[in-house]
Amino acid sequence: MCRVAIKVVAEIISVGTELLMGQIVNTDAQYVAEKLSELGIDMLHQSVVGDNFERLNENLKTAEQRADIIITTGGLGPTDDDMTKECVCELCEKKLVLNDDVLDDIKEYFKKKNIEFTPNNEKQAKFPKDAVILKNSVGTAPGCIINARGKVFIVLPGPPRELKPMFKEYVVPYLKDKCSDVLFTKNVQVFGLGESKVEHMIKDIIRNQSNPTIATYCHPGYVTIRITSKAENEEKAKALVDPVAGEVIKIFGDSVFEVGDRSITETVAGFLIDKEITISVSESCTGGLVSDALVKVSGISSVFKLGVVSYSNEAKMNMLGVKKETLDTVGAVSRETAIQMARGVMKAGNSDIGISTTGIAGPGSDNTNKPVGLVYIALSHAEETVVEELHLNGTRNDIRQMTVLQVFNMIRKYFMDKGE
Amino acid sequence: MCRVAIKVVAEIISVGTELLMGQIVNTDAQYVAEKLSELGIDMLHQSVVGDNFERLNENLKTAEQRADIIITTGGLGPTDDDMTKECVCELCEKKLVLNDDVLDDIKEYFKKKNIEFTPNNEKQAKFPKDAVILKNSVGTAPGCIINARGKVFIVLPGPPRELKPMFKEYVVPYLKDKCSDVLFTKNVQVFGLGESKVEHMIKDIIRNQSNPTIATYCHPGYVTIRITSKAENEEKAKALVDPVAGEVIKIFGDSVFEVGDRSITETVAGFLIDKEITISVSESCTGGLVSDALVKVSGISSVFKLGVVSYSNEAKMNMLGVKKETLDTVGAVSRETAIQMARGVMKAGNSDIGISTTGIAGPGSDNTNKPVGLVYIALSHAEETVVEELHLNGTRNDIRQMTVLQVFNMIRKYFMDKGE
Repeated sequence: MCRVAIKVVAEIISVGTELLMGQIVNTDAQYVAEKLSELGIDMLHQSVVGDNFERLNENLKTAEQRADIIITTGGLGPTDDDMTKECVCELCEKKLVLNDDVLDDIKEYFKKKNIEFTPNNEKQAKFPKDAVILKNSVGTAPGCIINARGKVFIVLPGPPRELKPMFKEYVVPYLKDKCSDVLFTKNVQVFGLGESKVEHMIKDIIRNQSNPTIATYCHPGYVTIRITSKAENEEKAKALVDPVAGEVIKIFGDSVFEVGDRSITETVAGFLIDKEITISVSESCTGGLVSDALVKVSGISSVFKLGVVSYSNEAKMNMLGVKKETLDTVGAVSRETAIQMARGVMKAGNSDIGISTTGIAGPGSDNTNKPVGLVYIALSHAEETVVEELHLNGTRNDIRQMTVLQVFNMIRKYFMDKGE
Repeated sequence: MCRVAIKVVAEIISVGTELLMGQIVNTDAQYVAEKLSELGIDMLHQSVVGDNFERLNENLKTAEQRADIIITTGGLGPTDDDMTKECVCELCEKKLVLNDDVLDDIKEYFKKKNIEFTPNNEKQAKFPKDAVILKNSVGTAPGCIINARGKVFIVLPGPPRELKPMFKEYVVPYLKDKCSDVLFTKNVQVFGLGESKVEHMIKDIIRNQSNPTIATYCHPGYVTIRITSKAENEEKAKALVDPVAGEVIKIFGDSVFEVGDRSITETVAGFLIDKEITISVSESCTGGLVSDALVKVSGISSVFKLGVVSYSNEAKMNMLGVKKETLDTVGAVSRETAIQMARGVMKAGNSDIGISTTGIAGPGSDNTNKPVGLVYIALSHAEETVVEELHLNGTRNDIRQMTVLQVFNMIRKYFMDKGE
C-alpha cells in the first residue's frame, strides 16, 4: 500500500444485472470514486458485470493485474444469484466460514422487522477465512476486506443506503491508515465562458503543471477549474495550490464568482443573507425555478419574502400591477413588462430588491413574432431598475435553467458594480 | 447484426476522467442500457476509462472481442484530452476527415451563442472516413456510427442532454432497422407502493412469463412496470403484451395513474387542460416546485393562473389572507394554515382549484416541536377543501420532491372520487 510514495491504484467492479439492464443508476461507483479521489488514491478503470460467476471471475482477474485495491459492490444478498464473496474466495483460494456473531445479528434483524428467517439468509453470515468483517448498520449483508495475492479486496453491498455508511465508517479509516500522501483541492468557478475558451485562456498554466494538476469541468452556464495537489501534509499541498489558484483568479477577473464549492445560486443567496438584503421574485417563463433555487439554500427564510409565478396576464396585472396597456402594446415578453414585474413584486413583497423573468422558453413561440429564447430579466432596487435582454438556445428546459443562472449573475454583477 | 435470430450483444465504454474521480454520476450508461434493453439487445459488460489513449484503446480491443455493438460515451470535445474518435479510428484503421457541413453548423452555433470560435473547435467537425454522422441538436459535438471489423462502433458525446436526444433520434431507429424482431412495450405506472411490494403482488405473473418480459423500475414515489414482448410484427407483439398489461392493471386498481410514458405531473396537468379546470398554487416548503412542475407541461398556460411562493408569514397573510391568529396559535406548518393558503390562492388567482403546501423539509426543524418531514397539502375546490397530513423521510430535497408528487396524486384522487 501507500506507506511510501508509490501510486496506489484502485478499481471498482459493480456487480448486478439490474445495472446492465439500466434499471438503476450506478451511484455506488460515483460515491466510491469520489471518496477514493479525496484519499488521493488513483482509479484507472471501473467495470460493471452481471450476476454471472464466470464473467465476474474474469473481471476480478483483470482487475488484480492492474490495481492494488479491488472494490466490488453488489452480489452479497441471500439468493443464489448473489455470488461475489464466493467468486472472490475462489480467486483468493480461501474458504467461506460461518461467523456466529453475524448470524445472530441477522436473526435479530429479522426478528425486529417481524420477517421469517429463511435458511438461505445464513449465506450472508459467511465470509472468506481471515477477512475483516464490515458491519452493516442498515441491512443484513455485511461487507468484508480480504488481503490476498498481494492485493486488497474490498467487498461491499449494492444498495447505496447500505454501502455509503459502511464505506464512510470502516473503509475510509482503513485506507487512510494505509496512506501517507494528502490531497488538497481548490475550485475556481467562472461564469459565462465556454469550456474551450476557459481552457484556451489558461492553456499555458495547464501545460506547465503536473503537481498541482488542473482540470476544467463544464456545466451549463459556468466552468469549474479544479486545482489539486498531492504532498506529504496539508500545509505543503496547500502551498502548491495557492499560487496557481491566484494566477487563475487573476486571469478570469470579474468572471470568477466563487473560489470554493458553492454554486452561483449559493454564493449570491449567501451574499443576500449576509448583507440582509431582502428579495422578492416574480417569474413568468421560469415558472418557480428562481424561487426554488432560493429555497434550496438553507437560511434563506430571513431574506426571501415573496415569490409570484405570474404565468397569466391576469396575474401579472392583479398581483404585480403590470399595466394592461403595456401588455396590449408591447406584450408580456418585453423590457417594459419585465420592469413593471420587478417593481411590482418588490413592492408587493415589501423587499429591498425585486426580480423578474419573462420570456419565450419554447418549444413554440407566443402569438407574436418574438423568437424562442428571447428572455428579459430585471432587477429593481430602491428607485433603480436594470434590465437585460437575453437570447438563449436549447430546449424549453435549457432556456428556463439558463435564465435562472443569468438572474443570479445579474444580482452578483449589480452589487459588484455598487462596490459591495 | 440481428437480421436473423442471433443474440446481439452490446457493450458500453464510458470515457472520462471525471467519472473515475467520482465528479459525475454515469447516467449515460444507465440511459443507453435501458434503451438497449427495450430493443432486446443484451449487454454483458460496461466499463469506464479515463481520458487516456492507451487505456481506451485497450478497452476497445477487449470490447470488440466480446460484443457486436460497441458504444462509447464522452471524449468528443474540442480539447486535447478528448480522443475517443481518434482512438476508434486507430483501431478501425480509418482516417479522420473534416466535414464542411458540420464545421459550418459549429461556427453557426458559436455565432448564435456569441462565443468566439477558436481553432481547436475544428476537431469536432472531423469524423472517421465513411462514418454515419449523428447530428447534435443541443451542443457542438456530433456523434457517429462506424461499421468496421465486422462490428458496429457507436460514438456518442458525454453530456446527457446531448447524448439522450441523439440516441433517441438517430441510434434507436438505426438499431431498430437492423433488427428483424419488433419489440412492443407498455408501461403500467403505479403510485405510492414500494418496489418490493409491487414485485410481490405480481410475482406469479413475472415468474410465468418469458415473452413478454416484465421488469419493474423504482422511482421516488412510484414504480414503473414495463411489459415488453418480441415478435415478428407489431400486431403480434402487442397481442402478447395486452392481456398481461390487463392483468397487472387489475391487480393494482386505483394505484395505477398511467398506462404509458407520462409522469404523474403530466397525466394530472393533461387532465386539467382537457377538462379546462383552472389552478392556482401557493407553496411554502416546496418553494416553487409545484409551479415549476406545471410550467414544464406544454399547454399549461390555458389553466395555470397564479403561483405564490409564500415563504414568509408576511406573504402568507398579505397575499393569501392567512389569519395572523392561525399563524400565532397553530403555526405555519398546520392543517389550518394549509386550508387557508389553498382557499386564499384559489381566490387570488380566480381559479377553479387552489393548492397549498406547508411543511418542515429540514435539515433543521422550525422553532416548534414539529418533526422534520411533517407536511400538509391542501386542495380547495368551490366550497370544499381537502387536506392531507404527510410524514416524509429523506433529505430536504427528497421531502420537497415527494411533496410535489403527493400534490399531484391528491388532485388525481380528488377528481377520481368525484367520478371525473
